[in-house]
Amino acid sequence: MTNFSFDLIKEDSRTNARVGVIHTPHGDIPTPVFAPVGTQATVKTLSPADLHDLGATLILANTYHLYLRPGADLIAEFGGLHNFMRWDKPILTDSGGFQVFSLEGLRKIDDDGVTFRSHLDGSKHRFTPEKVIEIQEKIGADIIMSFDECAPPHDYEYNKIALARTHRWAERGLAAHTRTDQALYGIVQGGVFPDLREKSAAFLASLDFPGYSIGGLSVGETKAEMHAMLEVVHPILPKNKPRYLMGVGSPEDMFECVARGVDQFDCVLPTRIARHGAVFTPHGRINLRKAQYAREHAPIDPTCTCYTCQNFSLAYLRHLIKAGEILGLHLATIHNIHFLLNIMRNIRESILNDTFVEYKAAFLGKWGQGARSKEQGARE
Amino acid sequence: MTNFSFDLIKEDSRTNARVGVIHTPHGDIPTPVFAPVGTQATVKTLSPADLHDLGATLILANTYHLYLRPGADLIAEFGGLHNFMRWDKPILTDSGGFQVFSLEGLRKIDDDGVTFRSHLDGSKHRFTPEKVIEIQEKIGADIIMSFDECAPPHDYEYNKIALARTHRWAERGLAAHTRTDQALYGIVQGGVFPDLREKSAAFLASLDFPGYSIGGLSVGETKAEMHAMLEVVHPILPKNKPRYLMGVGSPEDMFECVARGVDQFDCVLPTRIARHGAVFTPHGRINLRKAQYAREHAPIDPTCTCYTCQNFSLAYLRHLIKAGEILGLHLATIHNIHFLLNIMRNIRESILNDTFVEYKAAFLGKWGQGARSKEQGARE
Repeated sequence: MTNFSFDLIKEDSRTNARVGVIHTPHGDIPTPVFAPVGTQATVKTLSPADLHDLGATLILANTYHLYLRPGADLIAEFGGLHNFMRWDKPILTDSGGFQVFSLEGLRKIDDDGVTFRSHLDGSKHRFTPEKVIEIQEKIGADIIMSFDECAPPHDYEYNKIALARTHRWAERGLAAHTRTDQALYGIVQGGVFPDLREKSAAFLASLDFPGYSIGGLSVGETKAEMHAMLEVVHPILPKNKPRYLMGVGSPEDMFECVARGVDQFDCVLPTRIARHGAVFTPHGRINLRKAQYAREHAPIDPTCTCYTCQNFSLAYLRHLIKAGEILGLHLATIHNIHFLLNIMRNIRESILNDTFVEYKAAFLGKWGQGARSKEQGARE
Repeated sequence: MTNFSFDLIKEDSRTNARVGVIHTPHGDIPTPVFAPVGTQATVKTLSPADLHDLGATLILANTYHLYLRPGADLIAEFGGLHNFMRWDKPILTDSGGFQVFSLEGLRKIDDDGVTFRSHLDGSKHRFTPEKVIEIQEKIGADIIMSFDECAPPHDYEYNKIALARTHRWAERGLAAHTRTDQALYGIVQGGVFPDLREKSAAFLASLDFPGYSIGGLSVGETKAEMHAMLEVVHPILPKNKPRYLMGVGSPEDMFECVARGVDQFDCVLPTRIARHGAVFTPHGRINLRKAQYAREHAPIDPTCTCYTCQNFSLAYLRHLIKAGEILGLHLATIHNIHFLLNIMRNIRESILNDTFVEYKAAFLGKWGQGARSKEQGARE
């Protein structure tokens, strides 16, 4: 893999937390890292300049969505997604698997791939492991994913069959991949079943991918089950390769999963809840629509250094949201993305300083006290 | 008027175009000036930082909308609109008259004021000349407006009656106004009737307002009628006071109306058309949704220096708009506001250089060639 490598800088002595750097053709990604999600070639409501200001070092884009609109060939014509959307730092694309398998009633799976209908216009399409690599090569992200089958997490028989397919598809994807400036990750599946996860991690490790994803979590299992699966794969996955937990990224998840060896996260949570007027505070999530903020001079979080908190009162933000103004969604998004990126920067620092356990306890101690924070993750 | 004054710097020798500076407590406004509209305490999709970057020197906010939501008392609690929305440059508020009279079937006019129902919740309210001043004093803009009645432009009898009211209301507003850090403008009405406009300009001039608005245009009359009315009032209004043409601001209007002595404009056109995917080019308006832009590498206008044109292709902008992404509306708004502010900066420069007539001819010569540009103005 030209230009792609991972340096493991430090392992925490009391947890499985790790600090590293992923080197890519579009720059370095300090890990652990949270990647904001730019489903349709834009992180919702944010410009590339906003993302730079927020200090984002990696963003995710969705293969399924971009394949349908505007199309991978069009993006290739523009020299790839970096040029098309004008984001010059690293990009990761997912495999499209999660989205395609979510099209209940609109898709048919066989051992060779999946035939599905577009959620946009009902048109018929087919993804195979090779096709998904071809699309991702056209899109041109720095980190790309093998095609995988994302099964319901508690169905053992289904997971066994899906895992066999995912493993064959991983081999076929590796064989099909030609671009030397992209890192292709293998995806560990296996639902909530330790034996399947173990088998999957071991098999994929044998294929020597430059990085490993952990898929099929944040889709209906409990947090305890998710944590258990991370603990199962931790000793099996190669130490010197980055580990990416797909679709997970609530504040509490980031602490718990970093503690279990995860290096990379992505989640639509900060952008999605912002569009519903919800924002993160050190005490949990709050909703800006609440009447109690109508005359509140304080910002969302007086300790926060984001543009939103440095400038605007809760009363003004509430007014914008109530009045249906786009600026309200934009300012809420700025804050939520800053909140997660900032947590991740602090987590990294704390691991380097040997204070991760203390920082985690302090954060989670406060976090429980406030508004609801039960949502674990979400994908688009 | 403490802290408010107008310096007339230059008059064009071949037209009635003027260059000046309006001094306000929140800074200077070089004229002629175009004010983006921030109806609900935000210029749609833009942050104050965006407006600063665009070089906006004045924005408009709507008295009617802010009175209903979040309420003038709340804004006053926050030290006024500048603090509430965090815009530290000049603000102008309208009188609310246009919006209230537009509430057909929901309002009742008498000689003392207007009783109306909120478009938000049907609740009953009453505006009088004194009440409208009181609201605007609470909002705290640098430039505020007398309460006026905006009659259908072609109904002579109605305009005669409405004008008499507007004049009495102007006197009552002047008497009620107490804040010395705000400039209260009188509003010239009279529909498309030269005798009424003449009478109105002369009467208001006698009251010695620090500035004069020209209202009731861009509401259904032709461009020729609008131009004729500007020519009627031009010699009557005091030379050393700014003249504000309310609700007007298409590119062609700005040239034609500056040539007829107008110093200030506002219009929702750039923000509103952006929300429909339409943007200005030197050749006229184009719509980003058009299939012809699907693979277009060029920006909206290769000569434009705005963030949007410096970074993004028509193909990417089209993708964002087609995909319903807020960033598309934001980038289109950035471009449209920049386009108008930039025209106004160029107009000012050309008047100072004695090349306004040539610049106007060159701009309007190109402007006709492109897409439709018939829309004259719009208000919210």
